[in-house]
Amino acid sequence: MIQIGIIGAGRIGKVHAESITRFVKGAEVKAIADPYLTEETKAWANAMGIAEAYGDYHKILADPAIDIVLICSSTDTHSQISLEAIAAGKHVFCEKPIDHDVEKIKAVIAALKDSKVKYQVGFNRRFDHNFMAAREAVKSGKIGDLNILKITSRDPGAPPVSYIKVSGGIFLDMTIHDFDMVRFMSGAEVEEVYAIGGVLVDPAIGEAGDIDTAIITMKLSNGALAVIDNCRRATYGYDQRVEAFGSLGQVAIGNDTDSTAVISNGEGVTAEKPKLFFLERYMQAYVAEVSAFIDAVVNDKEVAVSAEDGLKPVLIGLAAKKSLAENRPVKISEIG
Amino acid sequence: MIQIGIIGAGRIGKVHAESITRFVKGAEVKAIADPYLTEETKAWANAMGIAEAYGDYHKILADPAIDIVLICSSTDTHSQISLEAIAAGKHVFCEKPIDHDVEKIKAVIAALKDSKVKYQVGFNRRFDHNFMAAREAVKSGKIGDLNILKITSRDPGAPPVSYIKVSGGIFLDMTIHDFDMVRFMSGAEVEEVYAIGGVLVDPAIGEAGDIDTAIITMKLSNGALAVIDNCRRATYGYDQRVEAFGSLGQVAIGNDTDSTAVISNGEGVTAEKPKLFFLERYMQAYVAEVSAFIDAVVNDKEVAVSAEDGLKPVLIGLAAKKSLAENRPVKISEIG
Amino acid sequence: MIQIGIIGAGRIGKVHAESITRFVKGAEVKAIADPYLTEETKAWANAMGIAEAYGDYHKILADPAIDIVLICSSTDTHSQISLEAIAAGKHVFCEKPIDHDVEKIKAVIAALKDSKVKYQVGFNRRFDHNFMAAREAVKSGKIGDLNILKITSRDPGAPPVSYIKVSGGIFLDMTIHDFDMVRFMSGAEVEEVYAIGGVLVDPAIGEAGDIDTAIITMKLSNGALAVIDNCRRATYGYDQRVEAFGSLGQVAIGNDTDSTAVISNGEGVTAEKPKLFFLERYMQAYVAEVSAFIDAVVNDKEVAVSAEDGLKPVLIGLAAKKSLAENRPVKISEIG
Amino acid sequence: MIQIGIIGAGRIGKVHAESITRFVKGAEVKAIADPYLTEETKAWANAMGIAEAYGDYHKILADPAIDIVLICSSTDTHSQISLEAIAAGKHVFCEKPIDHDVEKIKAVIAALKDSKVKYQVGFNRRFDHNFMAAREAVKSGKIGDLNILKITSRDPGAPPVSYIKVSGGIFLDMTIHDFDMVRFMSGAEVEEVYAIGGVLVDPAIGEAGDIDTAIITMKLSNGALAVIDNCRRATYGYDQRVEAFGSLGQVAIGNDTDSTAVISNGEGVTAEKPKLFFLERYMQAYVAEVSAFIDAVVNDKEVAVSAEDGLKPVLIGLAAKKSLAENRPVKISEIG
Repeated sequence: MIQIGIIGAGRIGKVHAESITRFVKGAEVKAIADPYLTEETKAWANAMGIAEAYGDYHKILADPAIDIVLICSSTDTHSQISLEAIAAGKHVFCEKPIDHDVEKIKAVIAALKDSKVKYQVGFNRRFDHNFMAAREAVKSGKIGDLNILKITSRDPGAPPVSYIKVSGGIFLDMTIHDFDMVRFMSGAEVEEVYAIGGVLVDPAIGEAGDIDTAIITMKLSNGALAVIDNCRRATYGYDQRVEAFGSLGQVAIGNDTDSTAVISNGEGVTAEKPKLFFLERYMQAYVAEVSAFIDAVVNDKEVAVSAEDGLKPVLIGLAAKKSLAENRPVKISEIG
Repeated sequence: MIQIGIIGAGRIGKVHAESITRFVKGAEVKAIADPYLTEETKAWANAMGIAEAYGDYHKILADPAIDIVLICSSTDTHSQISLEAIAAGKHVFCEKPIDHDVEKIKAVIAALKDSKVKYQVGFNRRFDHNFMAAREAVKSGKIGDLNILKITSRDPGAPPVSYIKVSGGIFLDMTIHDFDMVRFMSGAEVEEVYAIGGVLVDPAIGEAGDIDTAIITMKLSNGALAVIDNCRRATYGYDQRVEAFGSLGQVAIGNDTDSTAVISNGEGVTAEKPKLFFLERYMQAYVAEVSAFIDAVVNDKEVAVSAEDGLKPVLIGLAAKKSLAENRPVKISEIG
Repeated sequence: MIQIGIIGAGRIGKVHAESITRFVKGAEVKAIADPYLTEETKAWANAMGIAEAYGDYHKILADPAIDIVLICSSTDTHSQISLEAIAAGKHVFCEKPIDHDVEKIKAVIAALKDSKVKYQVGFNRRFDHNFMAAREAVKSGKIGDLNILKITSRDPGAPPVSYIKVSGGIFLDMTIHDFDMVRFMSGAEVEEVYAIGGVLVDPAIGEAGDIDTAIITMKLSNGALAVIDNCRRATYGYDQRVEAFGSLGQVAIGNDTDSTAVISNGEGVTAEKPKLFFLERYMQAYVAEVSAFIDAVVNDKEVAVSAEDGLKPVLIGLAAKKSLAENRPVKISEIG
Repeated sequence: MIQIGIIGAGRIGKVHAESITRFVKGAEVKAIADPYLTEETKAWANAMGIAEAYGDYHKILADPAIDIVLICSSTDTHSQISLEAIAAGKHVFCEKPIDHDVEKIKAVIAALKDSKVKYQVGFNRRFDHNFMAAREAVKSGKIGDLNILKITSRDPGAPPVSYIKVSGGIFLDMTIHDFDMVRFMSGAEVEEVYAIGGVLVDPAIGEAGDIDTAIITMKLSNGALAVIDNCRRATYGYDQRVEAFGSLGQVAIGNDTDSTAVISNGEGVTAEKPKLFFLERYMQAYVAEVSAFIDAVVNDKEVAVSAEDGLKPVLIGLAAKKSLAENRPVKISEIG
């Protein structure tokens, strides 16, 4: 029985704890740690059958019975805890991003070099049934050579401005998933990026130094072209779509809905909106990514999303930021 | 240049006149006749370049220059005019139904026996792009052996009760098209029919001795099963769909819409309603059926919808009427 | 903590055990019983944390710690075990059907009369997200008064003929779900039924005295009309759809698919097939129905699907059987 | 009766002649002119009832009976013939583009200044039922303020390289329609453009100095962002879609198909491909644009697509060309 420790008992930490407990055979959550450990969280941990709930995550790192650590703490602590966990010989599943600072990510990659530790980054969309189906169509040659990749990614509503101030901005907290999807879908690297954007949702976002709406174009290493469009607010729900177009045809994926019900009346023919909430939308993907990581650890397989895969989208995001600031295309090689 | 005379200058007569004038090369409408010939109709005929507008249709039958007659008059006159036109050696395109009286239809069929006259019945749906695509899928074996045929046929709104009183009832004025579609889609004959129905739209229809909502099941000569559902009122438009299910799969056709626009907002994801009006929905089919008839005349081909094809749906309709009245399955062989 | 005993360790028994263990807080499976208890099943039970695995279900009924019994054994044992469980004061969740014999079902209903036992029948589709959305649209008045209810229900492939011989036939093992859906969707009772059918999939099914393809029409107590079409084989998957049409419009539900991927190429625009396997299709519904039952027990609520709800579809199924045999409409009041 | 002369008897000239003859009441084509006037074209003109077929278009300009001239000749003659027709006092419908040379377009605009001549440019998509529905949704406020406009525009196959050599390149012969659509949909002006592209379809296109695949982003005067993706080859047909996303929601339009047929089998659920051929796809739009122009002439209304509307997309196209060449965003104000 693989023993798991979870660092960070916020929303995503709890999601992982519950999905491991329910779905992952041969693994159990032994401990959870959070600097702001509430009575409520303790009660929840107890109900979930988690043996230990700590305030200090070092107790998890120090526990020789624990094989795997999930880092679900705030972003600014990811790289430091990663380094400590690697030093302690724990396998690490780290929520994205590893850091916004390229040097800190590189330090994690360096630490992994001579280590036997498995390290996976939490790009959950790679495990989503829709994105996987699109990737499979591209990979298996069903659309021929990829020519154009289009990603639509719009949140149902903007996060609090307080979050935006520390998030690294739209390209590093939101588009980062889409940058990962560009790499995942295309099997190629982004070489150059150009971004345009605006403050069209909430002026407070602009005052915080960020934009809320963007279109980013990219040139890929395989000659294909890619484009992402983002917005912090879509009235109809969480809008996550991909279109991959190639020499033999196109694969497109749409959103999931709560039901297939369609109502026809004098107003029109109305289907359900996309699922609104990312946890609901990607619940199965959260289970699948952690299951895959545990499988990689147990059976000594390669992880699905490496620390390098964690670095690349940050580089692209920083290039996009620079592109927006300087209104010119920016090569990824200019960054880091 | 084929010369055409149109008997009946109501809605459908005018539709045919306009579509021949616009689309059918090598044919022209020389004359139109209507017992209630208005100044407006005369002006319309003149604008259309129709040389003659008569009150008495016998003038059309007597004109040796006219090759083809389109019978677009009221239903109760179809069989009589058919007989006269056949006797006059005119090729006849007759709007459906030939008559509600089986004997009168048989008289037309008998008159055709030793004649060289081409005779086609106006079951326009056989020429509709959607129905043709479904038929082609069935005929070409794409769904294997037909097992279940389902037809949904709902009008946007009920006709005036005055019409219902003389129409022969729902099975003879509305379902008759669907009975034809059962034969067209299946390539088989209806052997037995069972009908249930109700007055769910308008009590006045019930007072007029008819129903406004029905489900009719049928056993076909090839062993397949069929079902039609009808209603005189669909708030969302003219609803005309078919599903043909067989040993290898299914083909389904839906409705046409004015555009492909889909609006997503807080209320849902809303597409356009089906086209509301049968003339708009089937405009291309009206052109195609008359073109096909002219082609059959000019090139001495078999007509697409024979007088026998005009008889069969009337037999099925009368059997459905009897089934509803007696609440039991009725064999077609019991009728006529 | 509610203690549950499961009688029958076949496919569905295991499904319930796993879903309770994973998803139902405040309840646990204490014991499972199966007359053919294999080592494999024992190992599975052990891995699931089920304390006891018996050959004889009476040990479950005799255990005072057990509050709830799930009857997942073969159909012919349902009513007998129900009676014993009720006598033992256990709350009962019984897989459908309670029995094929109306008198035996009535005996269960009678036994419940003076008992405080909760009894729910396993019509899982009532808990499916799509069917619930359609029901909600009807119930909330979104389509006005119900006029026509259409259910398509086709299995991906026929069960073994050995099963068909004991299943009670297509109307009692397959259509029974659809009969329940007619009542659920309409909120009305079936008063009269007429069935046509054929052996179009496999002659062996005919030799076993059953049909494999059917259309059943029904008159409902609220004046609405209903129709079900069934087939034992749909090459494209498990096809479960409903269309409810009324005075204000229509609600329609389609199938679930593994992903939303659509591939466009020279062949056409191709989406995924419906989910193939009923367990996968209805997994969430299995969880929801048992959760609802446990909630009814714990909080003394009315059960969602009563023993009477278990009786009614059997009556309709027997009427359909009689209708097919005698080729005439049969009133439900003629049965039982 | 308005008399029309058509200059250029190629494909599009004939399309206009036929649609006017069939559908436009109160107008007739009196003459057609083409420097390469074949016997076949003469026979066609005769069959269409066109009185005159000339080799020299000056005969049309000299005919005082002719009110309207349609310029359907090769692109390099558009501006010169426009100037002559304006001088002759003819109302002009000119196929797009007026010219590739900004100065020549400006000369036409200047010539119109003190003239009473109506001048419309042939941007047919503005009259397409789908594009109009999307425009209407935006204009009427159904999606709130426009934030992101996405246009997908892919041809079924590349034109001959000989055409590409004289066409002005992808941005001026293909994307020009999409640039017009950006203005039409948004009701705003393009201020800055950035283009990336590649030769992914046919190396011969690259050798001719052009690209065959492109993504173009734009900043609009109302603050919205726009993106177009183009490819010269889509195996599944002529792919013309728009997505307009705003503060209240989104409107999206898809392609038209030959039928609504959907075939479900073991391979998947397959719908028809988009219509393949632009003439078929936009036939109604060709009729509508000429009808609108004739209406503008007869009733002295403003034309739907002015000479200025003809100039703007050329400016954007030239900016896109410069952007691609210099790999930097280019302001429209830098051009012309």
